[in-house]
Amino acid sequence: MSFNTFGHIFRVTTWGESHGPALGATVDGCPPGVPVTDEALQHWLDLRKPGQNKFTTQRREPDAVEILSGVFEGVSTGHPIQLMIRNTDQRSKDYGDIAEKFRPGHADITYWQKYGIRDYRGGGRSSARETAARVAAGGVARAALAKLAPKLRITGYMVQMGPHGIDRARFNWDEIEKNPFWSPDAKAAEDWAAYLDALRKSGDSVGAVIEVTARGVPAGLGAPVYGKLDTDLAAAMMSINAVKGVEIGEGMAAAALTGTENADEITMGPDGPDYSSNHAGGILGGISTGQDVVVRFAVKPTSSILTPRKTITKSGEPTEIVTKGRHDPCVGIRAVPVAEAMAACVILDHLLWHRGHVGENQGQIG
Amino acid sequence: MSFNTFGHIFRVTTWGESHGPALGATVDGCPPGVPVTDEALQHWLDLRKPGQNKFTTQRREPDAVEILSGVFEGVSTGHPIQLMIRNTDQRSKDYGDIAEKFRPGHADITYWQKYGIRDYRGGGRSSARETAARVAAGGVARAALAKLAPKLRITGYMVQMGPHGIDRARFNWDEIEKNPFWSPDAKAAEDWAAYLDALRKSGDSVGAVIEVTARGVPAGLGAPVYGKLDTDLAAAMMSINAVKGVEIGEGMAAAALTGTENADEITMGPDGPDYSSNHAGGILGGISTGQDVVVRFAVKPTSSILTPRKTITKSGEPTEIVTKGRHDPCVGIRAVPVAEAMAACVILDHLLWHRGHVGENQGQIG
Amino acid sequence: MSFNTFGHIFRVTTWGESHGPALGATVDGCPPGVPVTDEALQHWLDLRKPGQNKFTTQRREPDAVEILSGVFEGVSTGHPIQLMIRNTDQRSKDYGDIAEKFRPGHADITYWQKYGIRDYRGGGRSSARETAARVAAGGVARAALAKLAPKLRITGYMVQMGPHGIDRARFNWDEIEKNPFWSPDAKAAEDWAAYLDALRKSGDSVGAVIEVTARGVPAGLGAPVYGKLDTDLAAAMMSINAVKGVEIGEGMAAAALTGTENADEITMGPDGPDYSSNHAGGILGGISTGQDVVVRFAVKPTSSILTPRKTITKSGEPTEIVTKGRHDPCVGIRAVPVAEAMAACVILDHLLWHRGHVGENQGQIG
Amino acid sequence: MSFNTFGHIFRVTTWGESHGPALGATVDGCPPGVPVTDEALQHWLDLRKPGQNKFTTQRREPDAVEILSGVFEGVSTGHPIQLMIRNTDQRSKDYGDIAEKFRPGHADITYWQKYGIRDYRGGGRSSARETAARVAAGGVARAALAKLAPKLRITGYMVQMGPHGIDRARFNWDEIEKNPFWSPDAKAAEDWAAYLDALRKSGDSVGAVIEVTARGVPAGLGAPVYGKLDTDLAAAMMSINAVKGVEIGEGMAAAALTGTENADEITMGPDGPDYSSNHAGGILGGISTGQDVVVRFAVKPTSSILTPRKTITKSGEPTEIVTKGRHDPCVGIRAVPVAEAMAACVILDHLLWHRGHVGENQGQIG
Repeated sequence: MSFNTFGHIFRVTTWGESHGPALGATVDGCPPGVPVTDEALQHWLDLRKPGQNKFTTQRREPDAVEILSGVFEGVSTGHPIQLMIRNTDQRSKDYGDIAEKFRPGHADITYWQKYGIRDYRGGGRSSARETAARVAAGGVARAALAKLAPKLRITGYMVQMGPHGIDRARFNWDEIEKNPFWSPDAKAAEDWAAYLDALRKSGDSVGAVIEVTARGVPAGLGAPVYGKLDTDLAAAMMSINAVKGVEIGEGMAAAALTGTENADEITMGPDGPDYSSNHAGGILGGISTGQDVVVRFAVKPTSSILTPRKTITKSGEPTEIVTKGRHDPCVGIRAVPVAEAMAACVILDHLLWHRGHVGENQGQIG
Repeated sequence: MSFNTFGHIFRVTTWGESHGPALGATVDGCPPGVPVTDEALQHWLDLRKPGQNKFTTQRREPDAVEILSGVFEGVSTGHPIQLMIRNTDQRSKDYGDIAEKFRPGHADITYWQKYGIRDYRGGGRSSARETAARVAAGGVARAALAKLAPKLRITGYMVQMGPHGIDRARFNWDEIEKNPFWSPDAKAAEDWAAYLDALRKSGDSVGAVIEVTARGVPAGLGAPVYGKLDTDLAAAMMSINAVKGVEIGEGMAAAALTGTENADEITMGPDGPDYSSNHAGGILGGISTGQDVVVRFAVKPTSSILTPRKTITKSGEPTEIVTKGRHDPCVGIRAVPVAEAMAACVILDHLLWHRGHVGENQGQIG
Repeated sequence: MSFNTFGHIFRVTTWGESHGPALGATVDGCPPGVPVTDEALQHWLDLRKPGQNKFTTQRREPDAVEILSGVFEGVSTGHPIQLMIRNTDQRSKDYGDIAEKFRPGHADITYWQKYGIRDYRGGGRSSARETAARVAAGGVARAALAKLAPKLRITGYMVQMGPHGIDRARFNWDEIEKNPFWSPDAKAAEDWAAYLDALRKSGDSVGAVIEVTARGVPAGLGAPVYGKLDTDLAAAMMSINAVKGVEIGEGMAAAALTGTENADEITMGPDGPDYSSNHAGGILGGISTGQDVVVRFAVKPTSSILTPRKTITKSGEPTEIVTKGRHDPCVGIRAVPVAEAMAACVILDHLLWHRGHVGENQGQIG
Repeated sequence: MSFNTFGHIFRVTTWGESHGPALGATVDGCPPGVPVTDEALQHWLDLRKPGQNKFTTQRREPDAVEILSGVFEGVSTGHPIQLMIRNTDQRSKDYGDIAEKFRPGHADITYWQKYGIRDYRGGGRSSARETAARVAAGGVARAALAKLAPKLRITGYMVQMGPHGIDRARFNWDEIEKNPFWSPDAKAAEDWAAYLDALRKSGDSVGAVIEVTARGVPAGLGAPVYGKLDTDLAAAMMSINAVKGVEIGEGMAAAALTGTENADEITMGPDGPDYSSNHAGGILGGISTGQDVVVRFAVKPTSSILTPRKTITKSGEPTEIVTKGRHDPCVGIRAVPVAEAMAACVILDHLLWHRGHVGENQGQIG
């Protein structure tokens, strides 16, 4: 992982700014022979696309992905796959009045201090628009996983909006794609709709907690110490805009448990080891157990709000700022497909890494 | 970051098993001209050393670090610094009865499945003993930071043990080194002593939350997207044994805040921008603001406990296990110096990276 | 360096096939504040462009480079610079009769064996067309070097075509851009024109030796053991299509010298150490001395020729092949701007690496 | 590849100075289950060991390698293998008179300029003694290759000493280990003995050309553009001390050939494609063909000679220098086992990389 590249074997480099000509992802390390089509990638991008309902930014981009390389006659060649998305809706005038002011909670000020660049058109490289490229790259990862680990299912969903969490007793996988919040709890989705509508009208925003579960991850993925599967998942999620916390399995709550409570007891199931519980989130010692891999993260509320906040200008003058652009009251919603994409990239990366380093799992049980 | 290496420019590769001849760290990328001595490194190792009181494992290792390379006449040469710690207390007989059984919540089973290796002597590479090497490497990072960023202070401390948190109103930096728990709250330390004593006697264990604050971090460290300072800190902490969650600034609690609440308003201070609060934990858009950098993580309870737990053997037979070895009732205690070391490595790495890529901060304010 | 990425800090990932929609380079790690324009990059691409005279392939591509990201208001932002070149002249029909046959000396057969991909349209990823992306990336490196090391001059030229070398006594820097062969010896250029014309008419091809000299390289660039400046230059040149040998300074001829002959004696000049000769090619122990850095490499003759050669088909049938496409009788000619670009990337990379790791040179002389 | 690390998946980091306490290699990425013993590694080190005859330096080191980690019960665990060699013969007094003077052709001056370090005890990190660590690491690579590619044979030998080359007509694989020069031509070995004896007595030194042939390399290893097998071999050889040129197959001589001459015609053999010749050195488009992989490199004469040479001191004063230490008249001799080790590391690395990225070769012929 470095500047703008993510992954060890399956390496994704994203590029592009929110208001430049285009953005995209250079995907290197995809195995050859994987079916990759514009349509399949577009499917994932469409799920992320903003402007689909009143709860996400009204910026409307077709977000049409173009495959420029690495695919020949519908399958990957083993060479870099270049994915480009043209920016079309670049109404930069909306952002004009913030050219001189720094938005609290936004990367405006740190980018300026570090790079001496103030891309007043809309955040430039720090914009969440960069995540469209991740979703496209994640589509490639999913295509490869469909071939190499066909039982794998990666699903993201929202488990908390502002202070309002889901009721795990009502968790329903089939509900997730039926509401605008990717909620697995239909009742929570209803409550959130009312809550968010009020927030949006008041010009405020709110945070959220997203969870991604990967079912069918083979045991043995990961590596000790710094190449742990959970380390890479944590880094992947923390790299998404506005994320402030990441949890695996029991997460922060593990601190309050005793060893007796936290132990996932092991029995022998028909297909190998079976576990009485999954406090570990499917990862022990950095390596997958074969249980569901569960990662969760918190997204902070967007800093672009209508409430006036104190700030300073580039010349150091005190002032106030109100951000009037097209923004999401709960950016967490749009983080769901991004997190799925990142999880797909990490799992594929570890699968290829494992295949190279170890070949096949070495130890038998039973 | 790969298999066993951490960092971009300042690269630390740890090696060694808990019961092999030695363990250590290969530290590459330390700038030349940094004073590095055995004594300075030993200071940090001694803080981590187990067996110092009844709350940590009774395994007694001198943990004497030997500098094998990269230092000439007391200063770093710019070449790899090899740090070796001999293992001396290797009473592997204690572990004999677990050679065939997998400990629930431990890496025994995943290491076996992946590598076909069962280092029954005590966890091998997955043992927390590996973290001694990190502490030694962190000592090198601290020495370099003392030269390059002399105002920097990195301090770790425990903020929660089991369900019992500190009272932030009693937070006292000077208290941290005065109790065996690195607690900044003297009262909490007292309560924890009683609580942990009871737990230890019952043969159980408990989790903890550790926080690391870096004061005096220059603004501008970090990089967008995947080389974010918070991404690297999250990966660093998640790579420590038994860590299940990582937070920056407000962390998971950010989900419950509104944008209005979460905004860190900006004013102009005597030395540059000043902030009314630090929900962001000192990082915006992956780049340091100059505020305190605050990272927090949860350590799960150790899985080595006296309560019998159901498990299976390598041949798949159901059985029960009780782990009698020398273990810590709260491994979180010993994670504190490790986390400080990791934070030092990450910050130095980003400082060198920034110096290479950008030189000096480009944008002026005021 | 991995799959398709080159460099440590200044990282160039090229992508694209000879007959796909586009090719390009993802350039990460360019410092912020460097003036980068389409025009400047186009200048270098135009020098490489084929079809400019009868000695290079008649494929005519405008090779217009488009900057898709990383540049704002004419200067680099510090974020990835995406450079795209659309393929326009894709007359793949010329290649139709080689879809089933492997061309001797070409990557057709190894790509097929490894990837199961036969991009019969013209070599796909193995085509020398990929080097256009390198030249564009090299333009960015040159722009950064113009700012950071303004005295640096990187010049490539041909010193041998087939068996015919230049006469070093006639070496003239000003001659290089005046003939179609980048020859510093006007007389050699005349001879080569006649020689190559005859070869071209006979449908044959020939190899060449190219030299690149970097004048004004600061002392101190490079690193010991594996990050040597010469190691990276050797890798850079060997990575260019059809290169079979790389030399630094005296090169292979160093084998025949005695230590007495080979010593570059040192004296004290007005601006620091001065050397009586430059057998070392400006590099000692992997680190630049401040003398001219001299790297040389051999390009084999292209394997696409009109002489029938024995080969086999994908189904293993013996056959003969004649390649009728548009090809260069001496591909070495077009390697000159590519080699310059690679040298610029390597030197910038080491300059940034040095700045990060060491800061400024530490040891004074005199 | 970075500072002191070599390889993508199989990663070797060497550390240590010629006169420090120890040197060694941190080997990460070795697959689990490979038999690795002290004895096997020692075998390779003993072949490299100096002081075995009058043609190599009289420094006598036992060069005993100690495995500190990553091996359990005689097989690799998949975790870092730490290999340590203690320095025992550190007669640094021999070097005393060169503490202030720079040796022409040596890294003394560039290390001083860059790092501000003058390890007058014998070259420090730039000493060829570092290559002992490479040979040890190469032993691990060979052990892994013995398991994964049992038909592979990697053999290094000298083909030229000073101006005197071998006669290829007398090439005999069995001769190589029978003479002190690793010459495959018994007659050349005799001539070289006389030649080198005279040189040694005169206090001078001479260069050499070494060739390494890898027989039985599977087709399909390598990757396009920057991860080419030949690129990595070139980098590996150029990283060895005193190497000034590297060739693959026909090498620099390819420049003088026509396409007709250079074509390796393809026929169908009993086990797959067969080639009429091997100008390509077993690599096409950066990927192995299954033919012998042939790499060749030139070693310059050592700069430590008895002939007085002009130089300067650290304070810039002109002076002369004669190096009286224990040095090799032809360091190329000792480069042979080092080059074999590097080739083993590169080939293993690519084999693991291929296994991860591609799995098994995708395209069938016949």
